[in-house]
Amino acid sequence: MIAEVLTIGDELLRGEIVDSNKSFLSERLLRIDVHTRFQASVCDTPADMTDAFLRAASRSDVVLVSGGLGPTRDDVTLEVLAKTFGFELKLHEPSLRALEAFFERFGRKMAESNVKQVLLPEGSEALPNPVGTAPGCLLEAEDTLFFCMPGVPRELYQMMDEQVIPRIAARATGKGGVVRSTLLRTFGIGESSLEDELADVARDEHVSLGFRTSFPDNFLRPIARGASVAEADERLARLCASIRDRLGALVYSEGEDQSLEAVVVGGLVERGLRIATAESCTGGLIGAKLTAVPGSSATYLGGVTAYANEAKVAHLGVATELLETDGAVSEPVALAMARGARERFGADLAISTTGISGPGGGSDEKPVGLVWIALSTAEEEVAQEFLFPLDRERHRVITAQVALDWIRRHLLGEEHVAPRYLLAPRPKSPAAPFGTGAAS
Amino acid sequence: MIAEVLTIGDELLRGEIVDSNKSFLSERLLRIDVHTRFQASVCDTPADMTDAFLRAASRSDVVLVSGGLGPTRDDVTLEVLAKTFGFELKLHEPSLRALEAFFERFGRKMAESNVKQVLLPEGSEALPNPVGTAPGCLLEAEDTLFFCMPGVPRELYQMMDEQVIPRIAARATGKGGVVRSTLLRTFGIGESSLEDELADVARDEHVSLGFRTSFPDNFLRPIARGASVAEADERLARLCASIRDRLGALVYSEGEDQSLEAVVVGGLVERGLRIATAESCTGGLIGAKLTAVPGSSATYLGGVTAYANEAKVAHLGVATELLETDGAVSEPVALAMARGARERFGADLAISTTGISGPGGGSDEKPVGLVWIALSTAEEEVAQEFLFPLDRERHRVITAQVALDWIRRHLLGEEHVAPRYLLAPRPKSPAAPFGTGAAS
Repeated sequence: MIAEVLTIGDELLRGEIVDSNKSFLSERLLRIDVHTRFQASVCDTPADMTDAFLRAASRSDVVLVSGGLGPTRDDVTLEVLAKTFGFELKLHEPSLRALEAFFERFGRKMAESNVKQVLLPEGSEALPNPVGTAPGCLLEAEDTLFFCMPGVPRELYQMMDEQVIPRIAARATGKGGVVRSTLLRTFGIGESSLEDELADVARDEHVSLGFRTSFPDNFLRPIARGASVAEADERLARLCASIRDRLGALVYSEGEDQSLEAVVVGGLVERGLRIATAESCTGGLIGAKLTAVPGSSATYLGGVTAYANEAKVAHLGVATELLETDGAVSEPVALAMARGARERFGADLAISTTGISGPGGGSDEKPVGLVWIALSTAEEEVAQEFLFPLDRERHRVITAQVALDWIRRHLLGEEHVAPRYLLAPRPKSPAAPFGTGAAS
Repeated sequence: MIAEVLTIGDELLRGEIVDSNKSFLSERLLRIDVHTRFQASVCDTPADMTDAFLRAASRSDVVLVSGGLGPTRDDVTLEVLAKTFGFELKLHEPSLRALEAFFERFGRKMAESNVKQVLLPEGSEALPNPVGTAPGCLLEAEDTLFFCMPGVPRELYQMMDEQVIPRIAARATGKGGVVRSTLLRTFGIGESSLEDELADVARDEHVSLGFRTSFPDNFLRPIARGASVAEADERLARLCASIRDRLGALVYSEGEDQSLEAVVVGGLVERGLRIATAESCTGGLIGAKLTAVPGSSATYLGGVTAYANEAKVAHLGVATELLETDGAVSEPVALAMARGARERFGADLAISTTGISGPGGGSDEKPVGLVWIALSTAEEEVAQEFLFPLDRERHRVITAQVALDWIRRHLLGEEHVAPRYLLAPRPKSPAAPFGTGAAS
């Protein structure tokens, strides 16, 4: 099955918006093992759209179209599509009633211009849009399926998942059974090591494994096929189990939307533990990540961002002598920060960061990229030195991620931070510890 | 001049990476007033690439190609391009020497496979790549200019700005003079109000004005043409001045990369002021934004993230009675938090946030979306209530942005936060205060 993604809209061609709809649509297809062969974008100029439709019909079996379903004059996708293949537009009564109900629900009157949105090509199938005004539609023309969807991401996402994917999957499974997939997220191993480690894990013809770098993590997409859902699920579970077998705690979550911070918050809440943070170089990033998770108030008490040395002394109880003798970026200061946060917030555990994210502030002894992270509980206190030779932004992001991962591993009963992502202090030839090769 | 952007690579079609190269290339063209008419992506399958090249030659004057210049077997862009239009590949000696020098600089030996990267189509012009191994090239075929560039963003960006843009601008200016542009960032006014306000500001045929929403900001791109750089610059300056005239302090920066936090940090450092933060619902986000700016340690002392009520009492000196009588999300608590942070960190000013970002935690009296922000200096203390009916993530982002903008306006000598982005407390029909219509 040859799939094509076609997005329509002047704003895309201006380049001032990154068109994430294209990657969304292709990625969703991949989950059912359908590979996108072409992607294209055109302005809402009818001639260019016609051209794109004809070309798509000539080379693809399924075309996912997004954009141009709105009520304004520029929104002409259905009109042009119908004309291109010789169909008439016709008022679709059920969609009109749904549209009227939509406006009624919000206590607003429907504008005349909205009626245009329910003029669908004759012979097409309407795709309901419960979260917006524009229904989508499926039109078959010249043996090609055109799925037209809104460009507004929230509406597109829901229509794709609820209406389009099941229809495509049904056609695809007519040929090759059911497809199931999931997402495994890993942290602490580079992409090439990951590929080496898992080179022979998906050798069976019924399963496959995709790789993706999403700095600072690496994601895996296991896909399995079967004659039935049960068979595909069973194969998927077996594949995931053998991946976990090899990678152990390097896999931090399974499922489509499980961030590291969500895993950490979940683990802490489950164990009834309360946490505090003491941040220097990350400047609040760890707290911001934890509190991005709904319900984090059940475990996160708060933290001190101690950017200035005086703040480390006054608010975390770091001894002035330590700062003078060892410096702010040092093991004793990292330990004192974590301990101070834990004690002062009355937390069960606390994490601290102190480092030099650059671009300035480095020295021969303490180069840019150096960072100390410490974890403190009533039972143990551990600090670890890292050197991340990355720019300021990535240095802060990876430091926050290591800190979060360390908490996760601590909850798993692992004593220390994962040995694989340890960098010896000040290695002679600094190398990025993580796969950063996100070619795009 | 009809421009087309063509990106090549299997990873793009899988959709697991958002292809930001396309938007980068189109946006750079827009800066010299060249509009992209087509965007396409194909896998590195030679047949599909040939097809895309032929089509591009038939419809476009300039084609920007990215990807497929690497040393591996899959990297066949130049080979396929040459073959498509009947050119031979030829070793380009100067590029070979540059490549050897590149490896020497890093003390590494060049691999045999790298030689392939300096085989360029006969008659093409090499485009140097100072930050990577693959030179780009410019090939003219069937009256169309093909600029081939690497897919690695860092290499692409530099080659586009230094090699490609000047060449395209030279051709374009042959027809219509010099083009100059800049970026104005605004915060606190919705996109449609902005368009209304500025509807007649660029009526002159030599200038134009583009709009873009980048939540929670709205960006403006003024563009001016002239017979000379001086003339274009003068027209651009005049356009910017009349925009600023109408919008006043709603414009927070001018130039390509000036974030609000960079403006705030710059303003504080310039005045020798030191700042502290007291964050509840934003959970460290304001601190993380401030410290993302290099050199922020000259002004940012630190802050307390007081997520739990006990933390507000213990670390910011908020009176327990206030929390009991008024609740955590209230004017007196916001004021006490800001004052506490300012006094305890010894700062000149402090900002605080306390609100309900949702999805849970709301009540009839204090609905999800409610937030209090306060600013405290030795001379004045002000608090303001907002209702942002947005999801958790956007609620936190806009709250942090209002807080930063308030600091900026305070430095400008404005007493209060911008009246335009005030929402009356608990309006009867909640409406998003900002343009959020980023269709993508």
